Amino acid sequence: MSNHLDIDKLDRLAEVAVRTGVNLQQGQDLIIMANLSALPLVQRIAVHAYRAGAGLVLPFFTDDAITLARYENAGDHSFDRAPDWFYEGLGRAYKGGAARMAITGDDPMLLAEQDPARVARASKAVSIAAKPAMNPIVGFEVNWNIVAFPGAAWAARVFPDLPVEQAQSRLLDAIYDASRLGGDDPVQNWADHTAELKTRVKWLNDQNFEALQYTGPGTDLRLGLAEGHIWKGGASPALNGVTCQPNIPTEEVFTCPHAYKVDGTVAATKPLAYQGTVIRDIAVRFEAGKIVEATASTGEAVFRDLLAVDDGSSRIGEVALVPHSSPISQSGTLFYNTLFDENASCHIALGQCYADTIQGGSELAEDELKQKGGNQSLIHVDWMMGSDAVDIDGITRTGETVPVMRKGEWAF
Amino acid sequence: MSNHLDIDKLDRLAEVAVRTGVNLQQGQDLIIMANLSALPLVQRIAVHAYRAGAGLVLPFFTDDAITLARYENAGDHSFDRAPDWFYEGLGRAYKGGAARMAITGDDPMLLAEQDPARVARASKAVSIAAKPAMNPIVGFEVNWNIVAFPGAAWAARVFPDLPVEQAQSRLLDAIYDASRLGGDDPVQNWADHTAELKTRVKWLNDQNFEALQYTGPGTDLRLGLAEGHIWKGGASPALNGVTCQPNIPTEEVFTCPHAYKVDGTVAATKPLAYQGTVIRDIAVRFEAGKIVEATASTGEAVFRDLLAVDDGSSRIGEVALVPHSSPISQSGTLFYNTLFDENASCHIALGQCYADTIQGGSELAEDELKQKGGNQSLIHVDWMMGSDAVDIDGITRTGETVPVMRKGEWAF
Ligand SMILES: [Zn+2]
Ligand SMILES: [Zn+2]
Ligand SMILES: [Zn+2]
Ligand SMILES: [Zn+2]
Repeated sequence: MSNHLDIDKLDRLAEVAVRTGVNLQQGQDLIIMANLSALPLVQRIAVHAYRAGAGLVLPFFTDDAITLARYENAGDHSFDRAPDWFYEGLGRAYKGGAARMAITGDDPMLLAEQDPARVARASKAVSIAAKPAMNPIVGFEVNWNIVAFPGAAWAARVFPDLPVEQAQSRLLDAIYDASRLGGDDPVQNWADHTAELKTRVKWLNDQNFEALQYTGPGTDLRLGLAEGHIWKGGASPALNGVTCQPNIPTEEVFTCPHAYKVDGTVAATKPLAYQGTVIRDIAVRFEAGKIVEATASTGEAVFRDLLAVDDGSSRIGEVALVPHSSPISQSGTLFYNTLFDENASCHIALGQCYADTIQGGSELAEDELKQKGGNQSLIHVDWMMGSDAVDIDGITRTGETVPVMRKGEWAF
Repeated sequence: MSNHLDIDKLDRLAEVAVRTGVNLQQGQDLIIMANLSALPLVQRIAVHAYRAGAGLVLPFFTDDAITLARYENAGDHSFDRAPDWFYEGLGRAYKGGAARMAITGDDPMLLAEQDPARVARASKAVSIAAKPAMNPIVGFEVNWNIVAFPGAAWAARVFPDLPVEQAQSRLLDAIYDASRLGGDDPVQNWADHTAELKTRVKWLNDQNFEALQYTGPGTDLRLGLAEGHIWKGGASPALNGVTCQPNIPTEEVFTCPHAYKVDGTVAATKPLAYQGTVIRDIAVRFEAGKIVEATASTGEAVFRDLLAVDDGSSRIGEVALVPHSSPISQSGTLFYNTLFDENASCHIALGQCYADTIQGGSELAEDELKQKGGNQSLIHVDWMMGSDAVDIDGITRTGETVPVMRKGEWAF
């Protein structure tokens, strides 16, 4: 079914995902979450994982037809259910040392025709049930990685004017380039890229800003940073000691905003694809960290439902800086996929923070994290607000301003 | 990939598996274990399960390429591993009320080229880890069912002279017929068939034989029955109160032999396909329930390894009666698949007994079961020893003999 895809490119993607991405250790089990459309990539990942010394490679697949069978045939009671036992088991596997890989590239519009209330209920049920499986990942307790497969439906969405097989090949090329797989030595590509990101991370951590000030069309935002926030980017060691590259591709440096100290307006600079709906021209106003006004030219109701999931879903848990000249941004492609679109632009994320972007955060209880400004939510949705028209300044503890970005590029 | 298969036949198989097989209840989750080759059937099962009121349909897939990737690339340490957390989770799901369906029809020769010692180690590791998931099934705590999909590799094995797509269609027809899916009302077919099996079951239970005496070419066996043994066959209620049809197809009535009271010789009447090896012309001698001599014309070493897995693997845990005139037997096809071949012939099974074939057995501890003659083992391997040349007599508590089968047919 995917025989037209360049097997050498898929194989290189698989090898880099295993060796540089998750950095699988001798004897470590590898849990893979994937849509069945990504089977050709998962098969290559299995080969490289076993060559790297995997204990067991354990793939868990979703299937679009079976997902739709639920929406089209199930009783209403089904949509509040989730398999707790499975997520608790996954949590135990991670606590027991397993690494995790996720393959993105599903059909972003799969559920577009389904009742949005049911989609939201099903998603919420999974978010709640999946906490034991997500906490070790969000808390960076184990090495993990996410890579992309150019599934047919996704490719058709990104390149709607091409026949689907050509769209998939074209999307594989885009993934290959964005994932820095070209040349003689992709492992060295990633070492170089990480070194560059680490330079930015070090400078930002040395500055230890109190807040960031964003200024651009429709955007005038003072974004406070969490107490003890840590900038991160590129490869870093998980708490199990294994250095991994969680996202392939990645261009961002990011940290934890203060969930209660964000004030002003933001205009999104790209559409947000969320559960089958494309939300365009988002504009919001924050007061004391909470979004108190929100509009969008399409999908506004879905966006409002998202903000209403819980208290934390109308606050932010991540702030990320990406130069406008990043390769993904320069490709000019809208991917309708967070892994790519978030690496094309400065962004913030509604919802859950990453505990490891606050000093000692992984050892803190939820309310201790909150006191430092770390947001808590069932959701984490990245949301683009950078462009070549946005300036960002750092605000120091003594109230001075230091240029961070000018017209979307690093200013230091 | 399976577009050439008759979708109406697959759909009817799926519907009967859900409604008559597992008899899924309103709100009940359905766990499905399947090879990816069976995806078209699993997709239809999902539709019918949700229509029947499923809470969630949760399929877990194996993939042949990923299985082989392990044997071809993994370090030696991999072959003693199994994902305990997953099987413990499945066990919790069944205790929590989920039903289970398994799809058979995998490539019976998938591992034929692999190191048999590694295959045996991997299988043993899974057997041990899977106990929490298997106990609720073996103990019939929940409703469950197994049906077959005509996977390409299996079909090619059964009909080696046909092109593979034709072989699959032909095998689907054979599954369809054996599964009594034809005519206007397959549900009624199964009601009638169950009534016939229940007549045999009732007579055998009324007789309450001490033992069975088998006489045929190479076979002269006195097979003691467990204390408080119960004959079963066809649909029966699981401990959760749901009447289900565990096997589709099924032709057998079966009970628990006495693991320590089997003496004499048995010659198998069909080859045994076990983990990629075809074992032919098995002949054994039992003493006090244990196989003390064993030969085979091919695969003898694999058979001996099987007998050596644990103490219970050289004793028997099931005895089953199937008339030689059963439709599967009359088809003359050797399926290389237990679900079919065991329903073509009287058989015994090496290894684990079914606790619910002893009165009150599901509430007994392992050693209490053993005292009644219930065998305990990591394995359960059915093994054909019936033919139109075998006679069976029941031996009563007072030592009289009563004809049970003559020349492979019911004698009562
Ligand atoms: Zn981000
Ligand atoms: Zn994010
Ligand atoms: Zn049987
Ligand atoms: Zn059996």
